Amino acid sequence: MSTNLQDYSHKRFNILTGEWVLVSPHRAKRPWQGQNEAISNEQRPAHDPSCYLCAGNTRINGEQNPVYEDVFVFTNDFAALQSDSPEFSVNDGLFIAKSEQGICKVICFSPDHSKSLADMSVSSIQKVVETWQQEYTSLGKESMIQYVQIFENKGAVMGCSNPHPHGQIWSQSTLPNEVAKKDVQQKIYYNENKTSLLGDYLSQELKAKERIIYQNDDFVVLIPFWAVWPFEAMIVPKQQFENISQLSESESANFADAISKITKVYDKLFQCSFPYSSGIHQSPTNGKSNKHWHWHMSFYPPLLRSATVKKFMVGYEMFGSPQRDITAEQAAFRLRELL
Amino acid sequence: MSTNLQDYSHKRFNILTGEWVLVSPHRAKRPWQGQNEAISNEQRPAHDPSCYLCAGNTRINGEQNPVYEDVFVFTNDFAALQSDSPEFSVNDGLFIAKSEQGICKVICFSPDHSKSLADMSVSSIQKVVETWQQEYTSLGKESMIQYVQIFENKGAVMGCSNPHPHGQIWSQSTLPNEVAKKDVQQKIYYNENKTSLLGDYLSQELKAKERIIYQNDDFVVLIPFWAVWPFEAMIVPKQQFENISQLSESESANFADAISKITKVYDKLFQCSFPYSSGIHQSPTNGKSNKHWHWHMSFYPPLLRSATVKKFMVGYEMFGSPQRDITAEQAAFRLRELL
Ligand SMILES: O=P(O)(O)O[C@H]1O[C@H](CO)[C@@H](O)[C@H](O)[C@H]1O
Ligand SMILES: O=P(O)(O)O[C@H]1O[C@H](CO)[C@@H](O)[C@H](O)[C@H]1O
Repeated sequence: MSTNLQDYSHKRFNILTGEWVLVSPHRAKRPWQGQNEAISNEQRPAHDPSCYLCAGNTRINGEQNPVYEDVFVFTNDFAALQSDSPEFSVNDGLFIAKSEQGICKVICFSPDHSKSLADMSVSSIQKVVETWQQEYTSLGKESMIQYVQIFENKGAVMGCSNPHPHGQIWSQSTLPNEVAKKDVQQKIYYNENKTSLLGDYLSQELKAKERIIYQNDDFVVLIPFWAVWPFEAMIVPKQQFENISQLSESESANFADAISKITKVYDKLFQCSFPYSSGIHQSPTNGKSNKHWHWHMSFYPPLLRSATVKKFMVGYEMFGSPQRDITAEQAAFRLRELL
Repeated sequence: MSTNLQDYSHKRFNILTGEWVLVSPHRAKRPWQGQNEAISNEQRPAHDPSCYLCAGNTRINGEQNPVYEDVFVFTNDFAALQSDSPEFSVNDGLFIAKSEQGICKVICFSPDHSKSLADMSVSSIQKVVETWQQEYTSLGKESMIQYVQIFENKGAVMGCSNPHPHGQIWSQSTLPNEVAKKDVQQKIYYNENKTSLLGDYLSQELKAKERIIYQNDDFVVLIPFWAVWPFEAMIVPKQQFENISQLSESESANFADAISKITKVYDKLFQCSFPYSSGIHQSPTNGKSNKHWHWHMSFYPPLLRSATVKKFMVGYEMFGSPQRDITAEQAAFRLRELL
């Protein structure tokens, strides 16, 4: 790889979204005098009587959680999308709006309040993966739903309001922005090449090696060439699957293994429970041909230098483009060392 | 305006970027149990001997600031863009990168360490506006520079590492993502209608009234129909100017008045020094025809419910699309009341 990329300001192209990220490798030495995040290294109990996600406890709306033993899914009590709202659209000159229907769910990953995915066994994570598969399939069958977004916000700094290990699913009646961009880019490439964009990219990464963190028989964990967040990572299936419902049991186990590896490495990096938002991008459930889709899971962690200093995506990033200091190659090197 | 927009989940279209925002008006009642931001209501001295932006003090690189009396501009000591880097590009299969040159500057708005734009007189803000005009013009003349991004990060929660009132300018050799999107949308509209997209939008807003916060002879302050941040606002010149260098002296004074009004109202909302990132989007300095450009200034403030509870743009927002709870109309109503 050109050494220029390690020394000089440049931009890199995200083949999946068609957008650029500004990289400033020379800037990593900037001193930090700004806000420090609070880190909680508090030990949590396995059951917290005041936690509305713990087994057997009562939620704000009065419903009682079952005494669940592995994974527990329920419909979000404060869903951002409504399933029973009227269909309408506004086309009033330059005021343009459309109703959006959807179903939002919460998934508790474990009854153990003290754990995160990083502390769970691979077989327990596999149960989470299987739940994602079931939810993707059943929500995708609803006639109202065209896309199922699975994600997790981990850590208070990522807006997570409850440390109990859990994720969310927001499924909705149209494709959201980020998915629409990836849909377009993958389709253009597939139509031209009759191969998967991400699959061809993965082959190139496996040859280059420098951004690979880990691989097993079915999955590769890597820092994408165009990563935005300092330690952003991506889990990519070696075979081109459109969505997670297509995984066999052994592939699900290997997916769980990949999640386990990256989350453990993250926790080691700054010796803290590493915050991030993660999400799975996969084929829409819109009944169209989605042969161009190659699903993948991404992790966007905010920390930059330590457990308390994060990267801020503010002024320039909001008005111009995302910007990063350490390069993808440096980040991959540091994470690989910790495996 | 359709009452559906105040009651049901929907998405609104941003005519300037071509992207959508998800709005969940019914969700504003969600209880908050997550992270609270620290607010500093500390009184700062007018001069802080340890501040590297105060007049007469020495910066980290050993340079001494002059004893400036209003505005002071210098080249960023830790610039994200380099002006003297080699030109190169990487076109290695699906690894695509390009060198990016640029010049980054810091602008101290006032020698008074204790102030923010909200506390400054309109005539002092006008000096800031005039400096922006000069910098836009002189940086724009550099052959290497195609775009000049003026912005401010205010408050620790917005990654601002020094409370001394200041903003930044990152100017660079290509158009960043957000500017490129607005360039496309404005051009399409202008070519079709021979009028300014934002000008026509503004006429519609002035008739609708419900999202207007304030206006003077030359400027309107409003919450855009497609606002993402809870109290996002925009300052739009009534006349279509491509960039800020085209303002007369009295127009600059009215622009300063508009900035003064919105920042003061912000500070009143939650009785705190209101954090935000602001930025000016205007015509590129690429020597092309930019008749389709209608410059504007936007404020993206993170606070949602109080001085300590912000909106998190995380999981769904990162993987799907931006999402907001209170509507643009509700936000405009609340800010207008405080004028
Ligand atoms: O340049 P500063 O103020 O040190 O840094 C701040 O603004 C920059 C431009 O928005 C961001 O890249 C940084 O993450 C932020 O901390
Ligand atoms: O749904 P939660 O966990 O209460 O809320 C969190 O995740 C949501 C989806 O990313 C965001 O919209 C909220 O801003 C964030 O605080």
